[in-house]
Amino acid sequence: MKVLKIEEIVQGILDGNRRAVSRGISVVENDYDTAAARRIIREIFPHTGHAQIVGITGPPGIGKSTMIGNLSATLSKKGFRISVVAIDASSPFSGGSLLGNRIRMQESLSKYGVYMRSLANRGLNGGLSRSVWDTVKILDASGSDYIIVETVGAGQADLDIVNLADTVIVVLGPGLGDEIQAIKAGIMEIGHVFVINKMDRQGAFIAMKDIEETLAMSPKGEWKPPVIGVNSLNGEGYEAFIEKIQEHRSFVKSHSDLTMRKFRTELQRTILEELRRRFESDISHFLSDNEEIKQLVRDKIDPYSAAEKLVKKIA
Amino acid sequence: MKVLKIEEIVQGILDGNRRAVSRGISVVENDYDTAAARRIIREIFPHTGHAQIVGITGPPGIGKSTMIGNLSATLSKKGFRISVVAIDASSPFSGGSLLGNRIRMQESLSKYGVYMRSLANRGLNGGLSRSVWDTVKILDASGSDYIIVETVGAGQADLDIVNLADTVIVVLGPGLGDEIQAIKAGIMEIGHVFVINKMDRQGAFIAMKDIEETLAMSPKGEWKPPVIGVNSLNGEGYEAFIEKIQEHRSFVKSHSDLTMRKFRTELQRTILEELRRRFESDISHFLSDNEEIKQLVRDKIDPYSAAEKLVKKIA
Repeated sequence: MKVLKIEEIVQGILDGNRRAVSRGISVVENDYDTAAARRIIREIFPHTGHAQIVGITGPPGIGKSTMIGNLSATLSKKGFRISVVAIDASSPFSGGSLLGNRIRMQESLSKYGVYMRSLANRGLNGGLSRSVWDTVKILDASGSDYIIVETVGAGQADLDIVNLADTVIVVLGPGLGDEIQAIKAGIMEIGHVFVINKMDRQGAFIAMKDIEETLAMSPKGEWKPPVIGVNSLNGEGYEAFIEKIQEHRSFVKSHSDLTMRKFRTELQRTILEELRRRFESDISHFLSDNEEIKQLVRDKIDPYSAAEKLVKKIA
Repeated sequence: MKVLKIEEIVQGILDGNRRAVSRGISVVENDYDTAAARRIIREIFPHTGHAQIVGITGPPGIGKSTMIGNLSATLSKKGFRISVVAIDASSPFSGGSLLGNRIRMQESLSKYGVYMRSLANRGLNGGLSRSVWDTVKILDASGSDYIIVETVGAGQADLDIVNLADTVIVVLGPGLGDEIQAIKAGIMEIGHVFVINKMDRQGAFIAMKDIEETLAMSPKGEWKPPVIGVNSLNGEGYEAFIEKIQEHRSFVKSHSDLTMRKFRTELQRTILEELRRRFESDISHFLSDNEEIKQLVRDKIDPYSAAEKLVKKIA
């Protein structure tokens, strides 16, 4: 298979060619921080802004994958182009069962022509990693109408989704019990649509009421997050669910300050990365000076004071 | 209760006064990035280096808390001063059950005069947060012989422990089954002592052999990680376990390059944070300029190009 050149990748992405999209994502995922990755993003960026980015978060085992399957099926039957990005857990102690889940999801999605990509959320950064943001841009430029991003429900990345997505779906279920107290912190603030899955199970209506009451006590913005019950086994509630997603899309479209806020947040991170790049060679030059480091260790200089001294010198 | 002044906190830490230690940790945890926090660390830093920092990592439910209870009891009966730092999960969807675990652990540890502190691993940084590093310094300067740091086994922080601890204990158990493949990645490289818990259970010896075989295939350094079996219910194996911890301590002591490497890693992070501080006001000045941001959004400038431009201007 011929290796694609960067300009072919860019053109292919804009044409909606899947091979080019996959290749582009691999570049921003694996060769992040290279000129090639930056060039791809720079050139496709003016063509982004069409897709609605829908983040889906919720505790593990709540049925997010099945829900994404149903959502994708319903939306693609309506003629929309759907892409799915699944963020993998970064725990070094798990992975097996999640991987199986992903493969099953990929199989069911491909029936509907949905493009799906799993991304490892690597590095020491517990928020969503840069490659997730870049992947969404590529999928957007390639003509997706909806980009569904699923987080695993196991870390800070689940809160960070609010910075990436236009619309955040929080999936909860019956039988949360005491856990509801723990869930309230942080997560109630980021949801635009709350979905109670497994409405056929006992306790589902209580859970719904619980969430509604918690939301009623939350500070009120212009958008009132609805609480929807769905049953993923028979598809019940999905039409109302999709309606709410689309309503929120219209809300976002009519509030340009939201777009600006998102861009600003992304810019802030990018600036910090750029600063690191700018001073990378100075820093590694300093850190590789064994005599300098030995002296600091010998003098028992704390890392803050040492860093302050260096930064005064280089920046 | 009288509020302690910074100099009283510092003196109290050096005297091993628990109230001062707790107060000092609260300062570095909550008021991180303030002059007070930095002053505490700067002043206590020359008094650190006595304690052995023992990191304990392993999958959730493997019995890490019980193991820490046993280790602490055995070590404190030998006359050592023990501190325990428990890192909390940052998942917005859990917390309840973990909290109960922590409270039980605190109760059992206090019987032996062990100081214990739970730390939230906050912020968007998925590695161990700055406050963990600073807390360990405070406990070290306060005269602890052993500082046991427990991670939750659910994220990147579990790998980051190798940068913080002198000695990393990886706890595994029987019945890991297919999971062993997933576990191998990353985690086999960071362990200095491997412990198989629940040796009374079926499959424990198979698990032990599995780990030994995996280690035999790993690249060999000067230190050969031992694999120890313990039974936390009756204390079997703990004496051998502690011997290995102490052996590794001697190994580290006789290799000053390891101390230097640790200091260098910490310095590298601190420098990046310091860079952020250095340019903080420039960045936030830029980001709060609505006209500038609007123009970038209007021109469809990608965040990388925008960040590059700004960094060229300020740094």
